[in-house]
Amino acid sequence: MTGWLDLPADTGFGLGNLPYGVFSTAGTRPRTGVAIGGSVLDLHGVTGDDAHATGSLNAFMARGPEAWGALRSDLTEWLTDAAHRERVEPHLVPQGEVTMHLPVEVADYVDFYSSRHHAENLGRMFRPDSAALTPNWKHLPIGYHGRSGTVRVSGTPVVRPSGQRKAPTDDAPTFGPSQRLDIEAEVGFVVGTPSDLGRPVPLGAFPEHVFGVCLVNDWSARDLQSWEYVPLGPFLGKSFLTSVSPWVVPLAALDEARVAPPARDPKPLPYLDDTGSEPWGLDIAIEVHLNGELISCPPFDLMYWTPAQQLAHMTVNGASLRTGDLYASGTVSGPRPDQRGSFIELSWGGEEPLRLADGSTRTFLEDGDVVTLTATAPGAGGRRISLGEVTGRIEPASAR
Amino acid sequence: MTGWLDLPADTGFGLGNLPYGVFSTAGTRPRTGVAIGGSVLDLHGVTGDDAHATGSLNAFMARGPEAWGALRSDLTEWLTDAAHRERVEPHLVPQGEVTMHLPVEVADYVDFYSSRHHAENLGRMFRPDSAALTPNWKHLPIGYHGRSGTVRVSGTPVVRPSGQRKAPTDDAPTFGPSQRLDIEAEVGFVVGTPSDLGRPVPLGAFPEHVFGVCLVNDWSARDLQSWEYVPLGPFLGKSFLTSVSPWVVPLAALDEARVAPPARDPKPLPYLDDTGSEPWGLDIAIEVHLNGELISCPPFDLMYWTPAQQLAHMTVNGASLRTGDLYASGTVSGPRPDQRGSFIELSWGGEEPLRLADGSTRTFLEDGDVVTLTATAPGAGGRRISLGEVTGRIEPASAR
Repeated sequence: MTGWLDLPADTGFGLGNLPYGVFSTAGTRPRTGVAIGGSVLDLHGVTGDDAHATGSLNAFMARGPEAWGALRSDLTEWLTDAAHRERVEPHLVPQGEVTMHLPVEVADYVDFYSSRHHAENLGRMFRPDSAALTPNWKHLPIGYHGRSGTVRVSGTPVVRPSGQRKAPTDDAPTFGPSQRLDIEAEVGFVVGTPSDLGRPVPLGAFPEHVFGVCLVNDWSARDLQSWEYVPLGPFLGKSFLTSVSPWVVPLAALDEARVAPPARDPKPLPYLDDTGSEPWGLDIAIEVHLNGELISCPPFDLMYWTPAQQLAHMTVNGASLRTGDLYASGTVSGPRPDQRGSFIELSWGGEEPLRLADGSTRTFLEDGDVVTLTATAPGAGGRRISLGEVTGRIEPASAR
Repeated sequence: MTGWLDLPADTGFGLGNLPYGVFSTAGTRPRTGVAIGGSVLDLHGVTGDDAHATGSLNAFMARGPEAWGALRSDLTEWLTDAAHRERVEPHLVPQGEVTMHLPVEVADYVDFYSSRHHAENLGRMFRPDSAALTPNWKHLPIGYHGRSGTVRVSGTPVVRPSGQRKAPTDDAPTFGPSQRLDIEAEVGFVVGTPSDLGRPVPLGAFPEHVFGVCLVNDWSARDLQSWEYVPLGPFLGKSFLTSVSPWVVPLAALDEARVAPPARDPKPLPYLDDTGSEPWGLDIAIEVHLNGELISCPPFDLMYWTPAQQLAHMTVNGASLRTGDLYASGTVSGPRPDQRGSFIELSWGGEEPLRLADGSTRTFLEDGDVVTLTATAPGAGGRRISLGEVTGRIEPASAR
């Protein structure tokens, strides 16, 4: 499928992708755009639909899958059929001229823990005398609620958080900047269609509710987290910032990326059993870059629990969904050391520093470090589609 | 202080209270009202201010403490000075004619765990061989994020949630309706003034940010919770419903309720150390009623961590606040058996059933049970003010 647009052959933002984001240009208000090649199509400009002038995708996402499909179909026609060129072309803005904003007004933010390799790595580090996985891990996708008010768009500075830390050998906790600042390379799922309180969303209804996919870096202060998290889970170790990529890739763009998830043993309970149903494993290849150097390639296709199972689990107790709910996969890690999605794994708890190309080493993040996650997935016609990037630079802790 | 209104001497909604809520009458849209005696003053009607016609308190709360104080002062004058009677009286609606709505559009919901007696009770039940309190408990107010999308107003039916349960003696989890459905009697704090990312809110800034106080029943499915919560904390065991009282009592109404919190040992780190500062312990007397019978009187004044300390802790890592953030105290329990704020404590893990006045017993909640929390606090002139009530009736699990 080619259009009247002159797209670079290797663009990750071709006609098979068409992700949605919120952008502004100098002196204009944030509005919805679609990435195409090196441009952004101003959706409000080209459609005149006020849902695309609200500064978030929520109003459009709330319309549901029929509306999503209809607009995607229109966009494809407008960008391929030369008859539309004259009308559409004036609404294309070079990506270099835009500022991207948080694409979604985030309702609830949930973070899962669904990479078996990540969970096993952490288990081995923290509970060397027990089984690597907790007894519940293979029975349900473990998750918890995070802070939706501190979900920000890619590029937001990462101010090193301060808080209480206590090493096992210390008598009492001390207060100060985190010394174990980390990333978590994750994939996020954005809910469009809400659901009613008391009505679980079954596995098969996943594409009716989930609008699209983004990249998530769930910045983590491991020292704050390890002191605070028993018994109620992570809190300040996570809540200072969660960064998301600016482009939300519609689920429809990932048709070619769908793969069978790994085999599960034991067999999950019926509400989580996806045997025989359409698979929602996704072959998304993530890259983690530190100061421009590729340091890890976490493979999303190995995730034990799929986003459809996560959604079914999250609502099985009757919890309702809202437009703008964001849930993330949990840190994505593969079996190989160069497939780990966090520094605590890459440096094995800080004991095996990562050696960088310039000869320096890293255990956890230093002030000035820039971490960028990128990802691609198979698209139509053998072309890979891009999930864009989520990046952040570590700034020193605030003086207090 | 008496006004032109004919208020019952024993009303908890006198001139010293003036709580805000969102109400509607048949055929009208939800708008802001103030409870006074047996009436609701239609704030939109009496002020003409559109902030009071939005269907939530958020727009008004966002204006900050000067605006809150100014309106409270106006209200007091309008309701006492007979010169205002003719203008104000037509906007009084009998409480019996109104439907109350969720007062706040909840941004993030955080739940703490700050009653020492509650934490010790649970520790003794679940970890009989360890210290009752985890090592971090006296160093920081433990908290976690809950689901803001399922915070609902008092009266919302409590549909028994289903989910995975596994007793220690079971080989594998089973799926079904919770068999250990419980309450948590808590006090909630509503944030009005937002804060910037990266800027901790110090102890002393509590009254600049917190608008008011409500009652919270954080319904809990103990069997779901105990299977899922290691290592990332409560999730589906809590996320099906959290009920709040419809009236948000302004912080200013609680001036007479302020008391010194219990002594802390060890001394907290400086950002949590409230020695020598204005105390934010609050003498709120909670009552728990089961099917009309008073079964417990949890005393809020014994809480180990105050709401000012909780706010300072929640933001010390730079996490920002939004208008509408709600944070709850954690279950309030006192040292005596009849001061426990949950059935898991009242029935000691189900082993010592609670005997009711009609001769029946309870461990956890049964379908049809109605639980109502009420609370009062000392007010001006020796009159107690009411925090209203939060109630809910248990409905059978949905057929699936």
